[in-house]
Amino acid sequence: METLDFQRHPKRYLHWKLAVEGPVARLVMDVQEERPWRPGYPLKLNSYDLGVDLELADAIERLRFEHPDVRVLVITSTRDKIFCAGANIYMLQSSTHAFKVNFCKFTNETRIGLEELARESGVRTVAALNGTASGGGYELAIACDEIHLIDDGSSAVSFPETPLLAVLPGTGGLTRLVDKRRIRRDLADVFCTVAEGFRGSRALKTGLVDHVHPRSRFEAKVQERVQQIAAQPRAKGARAGPGIELEPVAGRVEGDTVRYQHVTLAVDPRSRVATLTVRAPEGDEPATPQELRRRGAKAWAIRFARELDDALLQLRFALESIGLVVLKTEGDAAKVLAVDAMLVAHGDDWLVNETRLLIGRALRRLDLTARSFFAVLEPGSCFAGTLFELALAADRSYMLHDPARPVQVRLSPMNDGRLPMSHGLSRLRCRFLADPRRVDAALSIREPIETEQALELGLVTFAPDDIDWDDEVRVAIEERASLSPDALTGMEASLRFAGPESMETKIFGRLSAWQNWIFTRPNATGDEGALSLYGRPERPVFDWRRT
Amino acid sequence: METLDFQRHPKRYLHWKLAVEGPVARLVMDVQEERPWRPGYPLKLNSYDLGVDLELADAIERLRFEHPDVRVLVITSTRDKIFCAGANIYMLQSSTHAFKVNFCKFTNETRIGLEELARESGVRTVAALNGTASGGGYELAIACDEIHLIDDGSSAVSFPETPLLAVLPGTGGLTRLVDKRRIRRDLADVFCTVAEGFRGSRALKTGLVDHVHPRSRFEAKVQERVQQIAAQPRAKGARAGPGIELEPVAGRVEGDTVRYQHVTLAVDPRSRVATLTVRAPEGDEPATPQELRRRGAKAWAIRFARELDDALLQLRFALESIGLVVLKTEGDAAKVLAVDAMLVAHGDDWLVNETRLLIGRALRRLDLTARSFFAVLEPGSCFAGTLFELALAADRSYMLHDPARPVQVRLSPMNDGRLPMSHGLSRLRCRFLADPRRVDAALSIREPIETEQALELGLVTFAPDDIDWDDEVRVAIEERASLSPDALTGMEASLRFAGPESMETKIFGRLSAWQNWIFTRPNATGDEGALSLYGRPERPVFDWRRT
Repeated sequence: METLDFQRHPKRYLHWKLAVEGPVARLVMDVQEERPWRPGYPLKLNSYDLGVDLELADAIERLRFEHPDVRVLVITSTRDKIFCAGANIYMLQSSTHAFKVNFCKFTNETRIGLEELARESGVRTVAALNGTASGGGYELAIACDEIHLIDDGSSAVSFPETPLLAVLPGTGGLTRLVDKRRIRRDLADVFCTVAEGFRGSRALKTGLVDHVHPRSRFEAKVQERVQQIAAQPRAKGARAGPGIELEPVAGRVEGDTVRYQHVTLAVDPRSRVATLTVRAPEGDEPATPQELRRRGAKAWAIRFARELDDALLQLRFALESIGLVVLKTEGDAAKVLAVDAMLVAHGDDWLVNETRLLIGRALRRLDLTARSFFAVLEPGSCFAGTLFELALAADRSYMLHDPARPVQVRLSPMNDGRLPMSHGLSRLRCRFLADPRRVDAALSIREPIETEQALELGLVTFAPDDIDWDDEVRVAIEERASLSPDALTGMEASLRFAGPESMETKIFGRLSAWQNWIFTRPNATGDEGALSLYGRPERPVFDWRRT
Repeated sequence: METLDFQRHPKRYLHWKLAVEGPVARLVMDVQEERPWRPGYPLKLNSYDLGVDLELADAIERLRFEHPDVRVLVITSTRDKIFCAGANIYMLQSSTHAFKVNFCKFTNETRIGLEELARESGVRTVAALNGTASGGGYELAIACDEIHLIDDGSSAVSFPETPLLAVLPGTGGLTRLVDKRRIRRDLADVFCTVAEGFRGSRALKTGLVDHVHPRSRFEAKVQERVQQIAAQPRAKGARAGPGIELEPVAGRVEGDTVRYQHVTLAVDPRSRVATLTVRAPEGDEPATPQELRRRGAKAWAIRFARELDDALLQLRFALESIGLVVLKTEGDAAKVLAVDAMLVAHGDDWLVNETRLLIGRALRRLDLTARSFFAVLEPGSCFAGTLFELALAADRSYMLHDPARPVQVRLSPMNDGRLPMSHGLSRLRCRFLADPRRVDAALSIREPIETEQALELGLVTFAPDDIDWDDEVRVAIEERASLSPDALTGMEASLRFAGPESMETKIFGRLSAWQNWIFTRPNATGDEGALSLYGRPERPVFDWRRT
């Protein structure tokens, strides 16, 4: 088995430059044409692929942890007349359906991470469009708090996907137009069908951008605005340096197993099943924010979340044919709960808060991963507090019932809304939508909960006894792995997110589902489809039947 | 051009029997195997196709208008050990993708109409499952207020779609499991992967049904419950007879035009554009509930809505290749507003209320129709009140600006939430999500609004002058009709429903989009897909790559 390298570092960025000066960070896109993620397509006009987006995601993480003094982030480019041309079309043309879908999902997560940086970490994000932002380029801009567009008679914002490529803006663009920027639907309709987009004052009037500045004053105006933000009085309890450095968390491959420090991903290609194990801390973990600063990214809470995240990306991109992931934990539940206690007691410390948010993102990445997840709770496991979220995130769970070898789960305040799903509910609340009193009942128990009680409380799905255990779990795994991957993807996406919808779930549910469908349609990806023919002289040929 | 016959009448039902006795209606499914909607598949085991569902939809409409005394509706079957086996698989196998999608959409609308009957018209709906309800059969049951299942050791409720057919329950089932019945997601996960489903007490315990009764007492128990509901004191202002009879509203075909009394659908197959014109009342319309009772279904408000509904179904099923619909109105706006005034003043009358709900359903059918809609506002048009909703429902609108030939729009209280979209917002409120004050500003004007002011208020998209008008509208129509139908479907579905989501929009947005995707995937509909091979000895062959 081979893994992919998702670890990035600013010193080795190919496509972005991250510069931090006091409270101001600048993230400058300067895509190297000849350095695509895989060979076969030049990255012209600041177009992007997975490699470009991995660096962006890395930069956002580093701003969180390494640069707590930053209060405003400017995203811009150095290219003349171009901010970003969006996802590279030739890359999309030459990608499998599974890759296209996962690529869009990752870019969506990155944009939502940018919005979380603004909302939760108080970093105001400013898109400084020094040139045209089209497709995913404009989608990056509308993930920012405010958009400044150069008014030079040629630079525009645009969503040319529908008219030019017969696909949708795949990174949340349509949803953000009408739900975030609340642009009138008829104006959004016009905008999305005009390939060349809207320039200057028309973009401003439509609400697509927040400010336009003439070329001669663009830099100065953006700079002025950035300084204005940076000069605002620091909020009480705001982030402040020093930060901690994020070290790489790459796993070591041994045969069909990837070993990280706290996470192991063991793959069985024949059965298409992987086992993802998270281990509790082994020694003592920081008990105060000061100790957490000293331990830095080596702290278990930070490290395991980053490793889990990397493992999920391996599943998505390197292990396409794995259909089912068995979630396990190992170690001392008390040590997990001690970490939880620290995260809860010191939630007003910025680094503690960032650590909690990081774990939340990794768990949401799991919620949004198109694999079946079964949690298996055995003796020696430590599904406690934060790690119990793994069992709650699973599509179902199996907990051994054997008085001779007791298994326990434990809840902590971390299960009470501090690690929300994409729609804002805790996994426990989403689980017990029918009866919120069950949430309180479960949370009120701080002692270890053994199998019978866990089943009674509704915390696990099945509790086979020791005689049935092996067969029942084995058969369930085999059956699941035999079902159609597509039907399971749609089923799981529909069952996992009961309750309210947020912009985030609308993007992943509604918009992504439509995009997945459109990607499979001959009008886009058939031999005569618009995406397939992009860049060639032939005109696409459409099947006109509407559905 | 040929139209399809969507008009049904209880006297000619093939597959259902509707019996009304005082406050109790019984709708009994007894599908005639040899009478499918089109030849090629027998409707075994009370499985259904579009013909079966058209009768169900008709029965629900007749309960609303013809049987206002009904306060409880029992849905059951007369087959031994079978309630309903769901949508007919051979029908699905032999259908085009466009038909499959539109069939699912129509059945979804029928189920949602059943829920509206309960919520808005006070008819308690009881599913009496005298045998197995699988797939769409169980989806019909969970659209009811309460479900009674016979406990005979064999009858079950089930969603076998994922394990057997590699598709999803396509009629809102997954969403209703976790969002309406609020079943725990892990239990729903198990239920949806067990082809044989859950029986008796397990179904009850999981929350899939509300009551189970042994075979010997099933009928008596259901009857007892029905009488209990029927005996509850009638609410103040509740519906009461006599009702009015619904007459057929079928259009007359002349060449490429379908003419109804108040609606005309003119089709240009070459350009793939249709023009849908709604005409205002010509004479005087009922001004009181008493007059409305006397006029009955011939009243304009009832008739135009039913004609609009039929025309939309023609577009969906008979006119697949029409991509763009131009919406027009003709006649005297004052007459439309007089009808609106009656609907508003007498909203507490059951028939007036049903009329309003009927118009609301027809407009929501339009919102959910996968066609581009452009409203064109010209001299002689009457986009006023209820008919102005057509302009608000359109993806965009063009209003002539010519002082020599003024065009006007007018608002009425009908635009203020009385005709809500699927997510509960009025079209006006959804349009001005960014600034609710614009809703109030527009609604405060009860005089005719001419073009400049309409543009200023944001009520129309474009206002070309008389010199540009012809070219601008023509080019816009041609451009729209040239775009990929699939990309437009996804784009419009994403832009039309800004704001909150409801169970209804989750079904049409999230679940339907996933289902559309899955229907196109080789794992379902390829030569070796599970749906294609259903009923044959071969096992499906899956592409295991997860997306």
